[in-house]
Amino acid sequence: MSVTNNLEGNASNGHPTSAGHLRREALRSRSVAPLHIVIAIYPGGTLLDFAGPSEVFHRLPNTIIRFASREGGPVTLEYGVVFGRTDRLAEIEKTDLLLVPGAPDMTAAMTPEFLAQIRRLAESAKHVTSVCTGSLALAAAGILKGKRSACHWALVNKLAEYGAIPVADRFAEDDNGRFMSGGGVTSGIDFALRVAEKLKGRASAEFAQLIIEYDPAPPFHSGHPRNASPEVIAMVENLLPGATKGLASIPGVR
Amino acid sequence: MSVTNNLEGNASNGHPTSAGHLRREALRSRSVAPLHIVIAIYPGGTLLDFAGPSEVFHRLPNTIIRFASREGGPVTLEYGVVFGRTDRLAEIEKTDLLLVPGAPDMTAAMTPEFLAQIRRLAESAKHVTSVCTGSLALAAAGILKGKRSACHWALVNKLAEYGAIPVADRFAEDDNGRFMSGGGVTSGIDFALRVAEKLKGRASAEFAQLIIEYDPAPPFHSGHPRNASPEVIAMVENLLPGATKGLASIPGVR
Repeated sequence: MSVTNNLEGNASNGHPTSAGHLRREALRSRSVAPLHIVIAIYPGGTLLDFAGPSEVFHRLPNTIIRFASREGGPVTLEYGVVFGRTDRLAEIEKTDLLLVPGAPDMTAAMTPEFLAQIRRLAESAKHVTSVCTGSLALAAAGILKGKRSACHWALVNKLAEYGAIPVADRFAEDDNGRFMSGGGVTSGIDFALRVAEKLKGRASAEFAQLIIEYDPAPPFHSGHPRNASPEVIAMVENLLPGATKGLASIPGVR
Repeated sequence: MSVTNNLEGNASNGHPTSAGHLRREALRSRSVAPLHIVIAIYPGGTLLDFAGPSEVFHRLPNTIIRFASREGGPVTLEYGVVFGRTDRLAEIEKTDLLLVPGAPDMTAAMTPEFLAQIRRLAESAKHVTSVCTGSLALAAAGILKGKRSACHWALVNKLAEYGAIPVADRFAEDDNGRFMSGGGVTSGIDFALRVAEKLKGRASAEFAQLIIEYDPAPPFHSGHPRNASPEVIAMVENLLPGATKGLASIPGVR
């Protein structure tokens, strides 16, 4: 649930701001240029890779979020989930922050057309970011050469094959925040809170965390191979040999 | 990222199962009736309320997930985010598990037509569940009388006004799992892992947690009013008086 519709003067919903010091904050925020975010999605992508970050970003003041894809319109994600209205990437001139989320099948992300669009937007963006295997697309586009980057644990070491520096953490940063990335899927929430702090200040980031009630309490301790049981590790390795070394194979990734 | 497409024999993607004991597990699982899940969404709803749970449920064996809405087709969520293809609720005869997610504006959820559909599906469902303020719709439909239920912290005590028993936790359960509910927004991930354990066993739940890398590491400790700073609490209370007592007012909720 969000309760910020009347607070933020967020241009993506256009509601008015509320009274008092919040209004003054919003007005001050609006007196500077808004933060433009483009989330570049593609067929087969994982919904939660970008649903976490977008939910955080939507609650930041003076922030405009666009979902975009190569063709525009609705995009069929993993499991046949349909998302969007999206804008066409080619119609977006530039953005302050580019986010590329991941997928278990990177075929659509690795097409020359998609890579050309994210390369073009990355060149002028202040911040080039990814969640999950989205970093492999950025790396394949030649944007992450020599840059530290995170990725889903199952494929993080594949980054080296594209010239990036694999970081087996939930968040990675290089060039003082020009490059920021999250690990697999749900890491996008932690990633987005760090991005929010950097770009909009700690109070805004903590406010977003409170509204989305991000006070995690997983019932099991199985969120990373270092903690998972041998039985669950075996399920993964049977399916994706090499995954627990960060070297799984998925379509589209060399 | 999901890497389960080839594993689970999940009827929502139709891929074949992999070799070895995983194949045997999947076959055993398929020898029983699949688990049918309906996620009932509506205009203005919060994407992450159901994107977390659906991402967990999609990774469970022998599970079929349908997104449905009153009108069918695409649904415009909070912040103008468009989701779906959805099915029409009226065309779904029954389901094993009904999930109603939340919204900062419950007007669409509280229409007699939507309430009638979720009441009808709840009557024959084995499990009636919600995330965030979705519990207020279930309660308004008369389904939660005398039942313990969670809700977003900002509105949890409003449940009492509809005859339910407010539980200020991240997860609540009643009638031995016939009723299960999560707190606000991101609570849906923890909720879904508990549901997964109950319905598909602990190994399946832990496997899903590992694949979605749910090893949370929030950079701040601001996910619940009991932890948030006075500055952030003041931001919320200015916007939503009563929220930190669980008694905020939002459209559609008495």
